[in-house]
Amino acid sequence: MDEPMKDLAARGRARTDWIRSRMPLLAQARADFAETLPFAGHHIGMSLHLEPKTAVLLETLQAGGAQITATGNLGTTQDDVVAMLREQGMTVLGARADSPDEHLANVAAVVEASPDILLDNGADLAAIAVERGKVAQIIGGTEETTSGGLRLRGELAGLTPFPSIVINDSILKAIGENRHAVGQSTVESFMRITNVMVPGRRFLVVGYGWCGRGIAQYLRAFGGQVAIAEIDEIKAFEAALDGYRVGEAAALAGWADVIITATGQPNVVGAEVFAQMRSGVILANTGHFPWEIDVPGLRASAASTAPIGEGMERLEFADGRHAILITGGRMFNLGGANPKGNSLESMDLGFLLQSLSLERVVTNPASLTAGAQPVPDDINREIARRFVAALDAAR
Amino acid sequence: MDEPMKDLAARGRARTDWIRSRMPLLAQARADFAETLPFAGHHIGMSLHLEPKTAVLLETLQAGGAQITATGNLGTTQDDVVAMLREQGMTVLGARADSPDEHLANVAAVVEASPDILLDNGADLAAIAVERGKVAQIIGGTEETTSGGLRLRGELAGLTPFPSIVINDSILKAIGENRHAVGQSTVESFMRITNVMVPGRRFLVVGYGWCGRGIAQYLRAFGGQVAIAEIDEIKAFEAALDGYRVGEAAALAGWADVIITATGQPNVVGAEVFAQMRSGVILANTGHFPWEIDVPGLRASAASTAPIGEGMERLEFADGRHAILITGGRMFNLGGANPKGNSLESMDLGFLLQSLSLERVVTNPASLTAGAQPVPDDINREIARRFVAALDAAR
Amino acid sequence: MDEPMKDLAARGRARTDWIRSRMPLLAQARADFAETLPFAGHHIGMSLHLEPKTAVLLETLQAGGAQITATGNLGTTQDDVVAMLREQGMTVLGARADSPDEHLANVAAVVEASPDILLDNGADLAAIAVERGKVAQIIGGTEETTSGGLRLRGELAGLTPFPSIVINDSILKAIGENRHAVGQSTVESFMRITNVMVPGRRFLVVGYGWCGRGIAQYLRAFGGQVAIAEIDEIKAFEAALDGYRVGEAAALAGWADVIITATGQPNVVGAEVFAQMRSGVILANTGHFPWEIDVPGLRASAASTAPIGEGMERLEFADGRHAILITGGRMFNLGGANPKGNSLESMDLGFLLQSLSLERVVTNPASLTAGAQPVPDDINREIARRFVAALDAAR
Amino acid sequence: MDEPMKDLAARGRARTDWIRSRMPLLAQARADFAETLPFAGHHIGMSLHLEPKTAVLLETLQAGGAQITATGNLGTTQDDVVAMLREQGMTVLGARADSPDEHLANVAAVVEASPDILLDNGADLAAIAVERGKVAQIIGGTEETTSGGLRLRGELAGLTPFPSIVINDSILKAIGENRHAVGQSTVESFMRITNVMVPGRRFLVVGYGWCGRGIAQYLRAFGGQVAIAEIDEIKAFEAALDGYRVGEAAALAGWADVIITATGQPNVVGAEVFAQMRSGVILANTGHFPWEIDVPGLRASAASTAPIGEGMERLEFADGRHAILITGGRMFNLGGANPKGNSLESMDLGFLLQSLSLERVVTNPASLTAGAQPVPDDINREIARRFVAALDAAR
Repeated sequence: MDEPMKDLAARGRARTDWIRSRMPLLAQARADFAETLPFAGHHIGMSLHLEPKTAVLLETLQAGGAQITATGNLGTTQDDVVAMLREQGMTVLGARADSPDEHLANVAAVVEASPDILLDNGADLAAIAVERGKVAQIIGGTEETTSGGLRLRGELAGLTPFPSIVINDSILKAIGENRHAVGQSTVESFMRITNVMVPGRRFLVVGYGWCGRGIAQYLRAFGGQVAIAEIDEIKAFEAALDGYRVGEAAALAGWADVIITATGQPNVVGAEVFAQMRSGVILANTGHFPWEIDVPGLRASAASTAPIGEGMERLEFADGRHAILITGGRMFNLGGANPKGNSLESMDLGFLLQSLSLERVVTNPASLTAGAQPVPDDINREIARRFVAALDAAR
Repeated sequence: MDEPMKDLAARGRARTDWIRSRMPLLAQARADFAETLPFAGHHIGMSLHLEPKTAVLLETLQAGGAQITATGNLGTTQDDVVAMLREQGMTVLGARADSPDEHLANVAAVVEASPDILLDNGADLAAIAVERGKVAQIIGGTEETTSGGLRLRGELAGLTPFPSIVINDSILKAIGENRHAVGQSTVESFMRITNVMVPGRRFLVVGYGWCGRGIAQYLRAFGGQVAIAEIDEIKAFEAALDGYRVGEAAALAGWADVIITATGQPNVVGAEVFAQMRSGVILANTGHFPWEIDVPGLRASAASTAPIGEGMERLEFADGRHAILITGGRMFNLGGANPKGNSLESMDLGFLLQSLSLERVVTNPASLTAGAQPVPDDINREIARRFVAALDAAR
Repeated sequence: MDEPMKDLAARGRARTDWIRSRMPLLAQARADFAETLPFAGHHIGMSLHLEPKTAVLLETLQAGGAQITATGNLGTTQDDVVAMLREQGMTVLGARADSPDEHLANVAAVVEASPDILLDNGADLAAIAVERGKVAQIIGGTEETTSGGLRLRGELAGLTPFPSIVINDSILKAIGENRHAVGQSTVESFMRITNVMVPGRRFLVVGYGWCGRGIAQYLRAFGGQVAIAEIDEIKAFEAALDGYRVGEAAALAGWADVIITATGQPNVVGAEVFAQMRSGVILANTGHFPWEIDVPGLRASAASTAPIGEGMERLEFADGRHAILITGGRMFNLGGANPKGNSLESMDLGFLLQSLSLERVVTNPASLTAGAQPVPDDINREIARRFVAALDAAR
Repeated sequence: MDEPMKDLAARGRARTDWIRSRMPLLAQARADFAETLPFAGHHIGMSLHLEPKTAVLLETLQAGGAQITATGNLGTTQDDVVAMLREQGMTVLGARADSPDEHLANVAAVVEASPDILLDNGADLAAIAVERGKVAQIIGGTEETTSGGLRLRGELAGLTPFPSIVINDSILKAIGENRHAVGQSTVESFMRITNVMVPGRRFLVVGYGWCGRGIAQYLRAFGGQVAIAEIDEIKAFEAALDGYRVGEAAALAGWADVIITATGQPNVVGAEVFAQMRSGVILANTGHFPWEIDVPGLRASAASTAPIGEGMERLEFADGRHAILITGGRMFNLGGANPKGNSLESMDLGFLLQSLSLERVVTNPASLTAGAQPVPDDINREIARRFVAALDAAR
């Protein structure tokens, strides 16, 4: 039953080839690093979702001379990619089938391997390093997520004597990933999962931050009629001038065919909206956490619920209405059958932010301070310049 | 290994439930037909792709009192749907694994069952009925495709003494399916198959008919830069005023990141374009026939070709350039992993055209003439009205 | 007080220079005609609005060797342009201050001058030629308007033994003028006259023909929220799929901030809409005839009316509501202060249709039949090709 | 020859009626102020462009109990509005025909009237108050412009012991005025002045700040093809992802039909662009200062220049090319014949920022500090909320 390790690695390589061929920013960094070897003599410990796109990031760091010890996220590690990376000489811990305890042991094992640089995710490595007194040898690193940044500035404040550059707070991610890539993968996923027509449909987008702006823009571009619910007055003003209907979520619930949340906040679609929503409404969330729609409350108020097609659930209510819940309220633009996630270019962008930020940690640590901090301005500008050049945008 | 027939039917039902729940036009027709029983005493012979959406059409005709004998297309019949339809009392011939000979035998068997109404596809049933002298009992029917209509007006002209209403020539299909549904499924499929970013990318759309207009409109709406190649002067004029760059395909091939064909014509992307195209270009076709890109010529001119990800093939050329061919030049908006095809609403629309046209055949044959003819104007108008009402578009 | 004729002509020339420099299609025709002299020995009688753009058309015909006798429309003749044209050797009758009787005498005088070619407008010249038995020497001509075409096919049917090519029915006019040029001049004029913001405003467009499509498209592009009222079911269907709210005018009147008519039909905005309209609503018409809004009915139902700013009138109603009527219900995209009318390029297009159609009348009369007829297909295609080339659209 | 003062005031009133009726935010403030009388006992000295929109602001402040002494800008004061305001009891100094010396005397006279509140423009009043030692009685005020804010923080730093709230730096102005209102008035003015078609035309927008974004967005929405030149890497990245062609101005000059500057910087279109630009190119500036196009350099390099139509100048070059310069390089969206300027709603917004900021100065001076400062966050939010409510955006 088990696939031989060699075949598994070959499969990983086949899947990674296309992706690598469409990540020109990392290709350039890989070539540069192969000459300058910034990470020679350094050991990078990493905790990050392991799939083909991240594999290209790891190859890039390895090309720069880094020794690598890595582990993935619980339940999402792709074993063929792991096999490929091991063949390429990296120490990669974990498998998709790992239990929570096994996963925690892997994260701890990364820290125990005494890396001097961390590529962290949710501050998991940093927290364990602090807990186990393993911070002394660390010269710095990066933190992928905003929530990891909050944790470094909160419960870990003052405990990590090394710099952590928070990647996700870069304006390039806001524009390139949140607005455009999430905006488009949301529309693509809506069609892919439901097969429902966009033009002429009514969409209520809850939240008008970077993600909400992108989602609203692309739904309207596809012929949808779009309304915005947003409690921040300035963003609501912006939405109104951008030409959207703007109002309270509950007041617009009877109008909407589809309600999509993108706020980052819990329970923004709850009992008040459920009471008003149109029968047949489709409910979906694109926020990182699965808490924006009050799914427990919704299910509790239903007379019955049943799966209906992949990624969809039909809830019937006593008053005769029904609703369709997409991917159980979890981030649906990465869900359903065959999700591709955000575009290759947006990942290429984010991983160049990782690469150049890690390079800065080793080449100019004096320019950084201890603790969480933004991507240095000159790195943002350099990457913006390279991205436009890679697009050959002047054509 | 074989799934019991009962389980197979249950799977068919599960897949059809969501789809049926989102086809309100057929739901209304089903309810109307159940009262008026227009097809009572009639026998409909059918040849049409058998999957959940067509199943809902068959149920609708059956609700109107029709006896049904049906078969599918070669190689695309979905066995679970067949099992479900058989449980519902229809005679359904064929299976996905059928050989070409078995398939032809099934089509002939439909004709031999002596239906008095044909729901035809490519004029296959009509041709066999003529060949076998089985036309006398046929009072009329519908033809799904434009090419079937051409055949009825060509090689079969004067040989079919009954009326055949050609569904695909309806203006409602041009607008609702070709422009909007194909336009959107093309963008969705491009992202689903390649995971490549749309904004900032250069797209050359070859052909500015209904499909090309929709594809260009939605690619631009998604931030793509779009150029049009079109040999018809009036359509090229329209494209220029719609704000697109307009020129010869070969002249724009060096500019385009992606080339998509939508002309219906053979070899519109051939040696001249291959000679000029940019390295890394992605080539895809949305036209019905797989002949718009000269795939044999492309492969013959390549130094090597290899599959790269599902639905993609990488071709390397001696001069160092490479190209990516999507789904081997076949209609890519129905290809790759997990294709959903055109929206449920556009299928609902097309199948109501079928339903009301077939009803007209039995209720007012005197209003029709022998041979191929367009959907009666009043049926188009009635369906347009119902579609707008079903959208509740005045909200 | 009177301006000397020489100064008047100089003013006409100054105003015409910019316009001529931006009409490349007529420039090319002028150069071609100067070589081929198709109109040598011919005498063109013309009735058409006399302003700088038409002056460039007349110069083009004169360059082709034509003798010209022309008159303008009642009350819109621009005297400086007339003076310039006279200096250039044309016989031009009429002045802005002409009375209706004087105007009619001028039209008759054009006919009495015995031209052999007519460039007609509303079939005025043809009707007089028939009435006075002056048709024998006429070899053919053009008719600018759709209503003139209807007249030729109606009351004058069989009475005009020469071909009349109807310019306005060309698909190039539908696309280039009605959709795009009127669409844009409508938005421009709305802002120019009212100074009211477009984004976030609610617009009800009554009519979804070529003009209505363009108006709706550009209002939405400018951030407006747009609804469509359309009684033709197919057009309403198209509007719904184009993503607009679609409903009855009266039902949407309470929602709209602005109501714009573009139907060609009388009284499409009347008592039913007036009863429901929102206080402060702005009412405007872009159709050719000033009858789409029932202005007499509106004023009769008002408690008071008063001009408010140039091109605007405020009507107060007994129930406390008020409405703003733009340019008295006349075609407002040509009204208000400083109207520029449709773009130079759209006029260049329409006048090349005139020029090449008139050329056809003299060079290949055998290809034409007596009476009203469309622009020959090859002329449409040739002009489409030249327009795209003049745009240098392949850049 | 002189119009009697009474008639002049009547004309001012007539022109102001429409405008006042479309400024709902100021109407509400006027009603509120009439109850709360925040400015009772206060004297507001003002220097601001005097036309109907500002008249409505002055009325609003007067309704709040203020004594008002005002003067306008050099050469733009509208005498009928002045007459009307005087009739309403305000002290208004100046006339359109004033000489520079007379104008300066008027500004000084406002200061000498010893107002305790300043509504300043370019820090003119503040500078004179400092110079003449007249700051002691001033409790605070507002500054309309960004450049006035820079002056207060620069040469006047530490010299004005009172708070000055800088209106133009509010995010509401960036969104509501710079992006949307300037974006739209630019397109409107382009069509109004040139009568040139937008769809299919190539536009190079230099600068991708708030104004540039709006201009590019609306030109593209109108069917234009748009490229961006921007030296800030982050903004260039944003433009590329927004789907525009992005490159150097000189490199794109040979492609563009129209070049529009919106940078705020001097000479962004100069010799390098002139050398490459396409013959017939139209050059226009929307920035506040007339220095973005190097007009002296352009004219010096021309073989001849001549006015051609209102607001346009044609320059011929020795190499046979020509260019069209709009309004001499001055802010063209406020130029040409019959300019309406930014929308009434955007002015209503800006003047409510003035009104509520001035109210804050008198009602809660303790919340402010000496010198230039941004609009308080709660005022921005309150105005955003009122703007959305006035739009009735939830409809």
